[in-house]
Amino acid sequence: MKVVVIGAVAAGPKTASKILRLRPDAEVTVLEKGEFVSFAGCGLPYYLSNVVKEQKELLSTPIGVPRDPAFFRKVKNVRVLIRTEALTIDRKSRQVEAKNLQTGESFSLPYDKLVLATGAQPIIPPISGINHKKVFTLHNIEDCEAIRSVLANGDKKAVIIGGGLIGVETAEALVRKDCSVTIVEMLPQILSVLDWEIARQVELHMRSKGVEIRTETKALAIEGTGDEIRCVTTDKGEIPADLVILGVGVRPNVSLAKEAGLEIGGTGAIRVNRRMQTSDLDIYAVGDCAESRHLVTGQPCYVPLGSTANKQGRVAALNICGLEDSFPGVLGSMVCQVFDFTVARTGLSEAQARDAGYDVVTCLVPGPDRAHYMPTAKPLMLKLITDRATGRLLGAQATGPGEAAKRMDVAATAITAAMTVDQVSKLDLSYAPPYSPAMDNLITASDVIRNKISGAMVGITPMELRNKPAESYFFLDVRSPGEVAKVALSGAVNIPLGALRDRVNEIPRDKEIIAFCQVSLRAYEAALILKANGFDRVKVLDGGVAMWPYERIFGKQ
Amino acid sequence: MKVVVIGAVAAGPKTASKILRLRPDAEVTVLEKGEFVSFAGCGLPYYLSNVVKEQKELLSTPIGVPRDPAFFRKVKNVRVLIRTEALTIDRKSRQVEAKNLQTGESFSLPYDKLVLATGAQPIIPPISGINHKKVFTLHNIEDCEAIRSVLANGDKKAVIIGGGLIGVETAEALVRKDCSVTIVEMLPQILSVLDWEIARQVELHMRSKGVEIRTETKALAIEGTGDEIRCVTTDKGEIPADLVILGVGVRPNVSLAKEAGLEIGGTGAIRVNRRMQTSDLDIYAVGDCAESRHLVTGQPCYVPLGSTANKQGRVAALNICGLEDSFPGVLGSMVCQVFDFTVARTGLSEAQARDAGYDVVTCLVPGPDRAHYMPTAKPLMLKLITDRATGRLLGAQATGPGEAAKRMDVAATAITAAMTVDQVSKLDLSYAPPYSPAMDNLITASDVIRNKISGAMVGITPMELRNKPAESYFFLDVRSPGEVAKVALSGAVNIPLGALRDRVNEIPRDKEIIAFCQVSLRAYEAALILKANGFDRVKVLDGGVAMWPYERIFGKQ
Repeated sequence: MKVVVIGAVAAGPKTASKILRLRPDAEVTVLEKGEFVSFAGCGLPYYLSNVVKEQKELLSTPIGVPRDPAFFRKVKNVRVLIRTEALTIDRKSRQVEAKNLQTGESFSLPYDKLVLATGAQPIIPPISGINHKKVFTLHNIEDCEAIRSVLANGDKKAVIIGGGLIGVETAEALVRKDCSVTIVEMLPQILSVLDWEIARQVELHMRSKGVEIRTETKALAIEGTGDEIRCVTTDKGEIPADLVILGVGVRPNVSLAKEAGLEIGGTGAIRVNRRMQTSDLDIYAVGDCAESRHLVTGQPCYVPLGSTANKQGRVAALNICGLEDSFPGVLGSMVCQVFDFTVARTGLSEAQARDAGYDVVTCLVPGPDRAHYMPTAKPLMLKLITDRATGRLLGAQATGPGEAAKRMDVAATAITAAMTVDQVSKLDLSYAPPYSPAMDNLITASDVIRNKISGAMVGITPMELRNKPAESYFFLDVRSPGEVAKVALSGAVNIPLGALRDRVNEIPRDKEIIAFCQVSLRAYEAALILKANGFDRVKVLDGGVAMWPYERIFGKQ
Repeated sequence: MKVVVIGAVAAGPKTASKILRLRPDAEVTVLEKGEFVSFAGCGLPYYLSNVVKEQKELLSTPIGVPRDPAFFRKVKNVRVLIRTEALTIDRKSRQVEAKNLQTGESFSLPYDKLVLATGAQPIIPPISGINHKKVFTLHNIEDCEAIRSVLANGDKKAVIIGGGLIGVETAEALVRKDCSVTIVEMLPQILSVLDWEIARQVELHMRSKGVEIRTETKALAIEGTGDEIRCVTTDKGEIPADLVILGVGVRPNVSLAKEAGLEIGGTGAIRVNRRMQTSDLDIYAVGDCAESRHLVTGQPCYVPLGSTANKQGRVAALNICGLEDSFPGVLGSMVCQVFDFTVARTGLSEAQARDAGYDVVTCLVPGPDRAHYMPTAKPLMLKLITDRATGRLLGAQATGPGEAAKRMDVAATAITAAMTVDQVSKLDLSYAPPYSPAMDNLITASDVIRNKISGAMVGITPMELRNKPAESYFFLDVRSPGEVAKVALSGAVNIPLGALRDRVNEIPRDKEIIAFCQVSLRAYEAALILKANGFDRVKVLDGGVAMWPYERIFGKQ
């Protein structure tokens, strides 16, 4: 069996190696346009920031063996041809036309099975000056070395166009390299895979670390001359810049597939079935060039990630070798380190869930990520997105200095299993004070959703509250005076929870009551006390002071 | 509605508070024999070691409000009577006979619903000297203060009888307080909820931190006079001791229930249905006095934990208030910090799975807990226990300095959903280099199981290998000479993986081949190369050098 694999970053080598594990007699050739094989693209921001010290670490196995063509030949029996470009696919004669970029020589490679692992490439927005030599993407090792060499001589002003994942990761890397960094984002928020109130917390944290963030701002041109950039011109003025990083996103490399007449999905990536076969069943597509299916909506989606690439490569290899395996789809799970915060999400965002037609119930639940009396406990802010009709968990998002990845991975597993919040609230998650509160954050959040669905609790989001006329409601802060003195919300009246039963007559009966505290637990108790005292319009502010995304008043007396 | 709750540590206050949230008109009285309400028992080892600085932190809410009877009255409208013991339950007249331990006064409390949250108590082994004043349990705040006062004047020799969870946690706390610590354990291993090879890694780590561990050793007597202990006598000699801690386990407090004629389960705890009702449907039992059901086997089990207590309390409260809710059961999930290691487990151990009749497939998979090139990456050792027939994940265990709790919580969720390793291997877990490898440890481990079930890989455990005559197999180390020079296994021949294809004729054809490397990935490649070269009896050593539980040879040239 002859197999040709096009692309040698992640999914390609994985597919090739797995095929030869299953069928040692197979002849597998991997074609790679670039110089590097099986390099850890996700590690680039950490190499840029010097967290990873040497380039070769991104190119080696865990025990330090370089993953070069010799390694693949000796260890995996895979033939890897670097600096070799696949030019066309002849499906009729089952051949790939390729070209050795060093010698200029062209040649044909016959295949029984073909694997497209052509990856993705950064989107280059069509703006003036975009080709300036100090405008970079951060997509491969060459990009990274080029940026590092610019940064080598002194502090720089960096403008990052695009506030997505790569933009945010790069911002941190550049701050670590003593750059002053501005992110320019067209949308009203960074990290648009998150809902606004979570993204907003990340934004506030990045600002606290000195990153300037300009949302709803469109880059129009990059100005400069010869070797130097002067500024990025936007629809809201000029931003001085020594270098510009493009983090606008990536698009799948599908030209080879398109020219060969393979079906391209609505997402722009190569359409595949669950076996990773394209519309030509002898041609597979894996990794960043292939479309995925969303596990909640069942709809096609495009979420290029190294973790997915590896799984898809294994599925393709099994099917190529005559075994059966299928790739069920993705949840758009992601995690990212942003200075002292982790930010992570999985499943549908609230916006996506509404678009998909769900009657959505959400919660914002801040709290310590382990037993509150442990000195290692750190705040974690959690949002769940659920379906009112069934109670099913649809999505989850988390950020803060606390342990977010664990909760998102549990949520991802629960969403995959179509669990309801009732089920999630009873998961036997491991508990000890250094690792979680007795009621894990995810369990508390599930109980909040259950209280909302049952009607025991009526929540209001900060954004909904923002749209209410101030005179239409009584804003009740049930925290202690000491807490209020430290940080307060404008327009609130303070009656500590412990005094509420005695001071209930201070609360107006002709207005809606919005109760809040630090994390909304005491506010929920307050709402129940008021309800028991005949107040029937009481709402609890989702997320309390801890997740309030607007201005706060500090040091009020 | 009148509700009486007996016990105010964890499940009791939770049940009481939740009832009043649902039914503000209910009259709820909580009886507590001791002085402290709603105290964080799981935090005791950390208070003992001074990680938690003050006693009151274990007795306060996250914002520092003491959870005392006044707090419960003002905030929750729950009446808590401390130093009040429930003496008998009169089921006919629906009354609890109680006694104020301060005044000596007895009184009756009528109930419509009764909740038993009587907790558990440490098992006191019947050995001579056990009542000496320097023999302690670590079950409540008074215990903890007593131990702290003994430790206050200088370094001590401490003997811990019992190597379970509390024994291990206490060992670390005492080492932090500069004690020299010996654990005496009757069984062949500490932490018997783990399989031996995982427990063994924890044991080796504890030894490296100076804890002496004597397994298969039975404490016979505690010797001493008056104020001072001299030693603990065991069946294997004397161990000098200044103080003794009992960590033999706990047993549920069921005497009240028993005397009232309520059904006691085979585990010794109070039998309950999924609504937490005892055999008298107006009497509920929650927390450490109640039996649970194992989610995999469906069998009754007894796993007292604060996390479970909270969930059960909520379920009981809902049912008491006429709403429906059920507690499905537990997985025996646990996590524990042991010096620089985390140790965690969920579901069935291999031993439990075999007892339950499963044809078990297991794996030992060591590896870095995040992208190997990240300087923050730490080793994690993982074991999965699965059912050969269905591929279902039955249990998981993990230890090492790496992130174990996340993987165990994902495993717990997957086991709850009855997922197979095929499904686990395709979970869309969040990935970024600071958080996980591109293939999460749990996904790699699932793929190892899949390879074993499909026959692509034949494993052998270290214990199985230990039982083989050395002359019956060829022990093949496929690591690099540099790695071998650092640490080697006795009797192995080194042929690095990269050279194996060329040196295949050095391998005897008349013996079984056992291949290994650091983590068993290269050994798997080696086995496939050998198989392709006509060797048909090749096995891969589970867990490689990284998880070898016996002697290793260091610094061999």
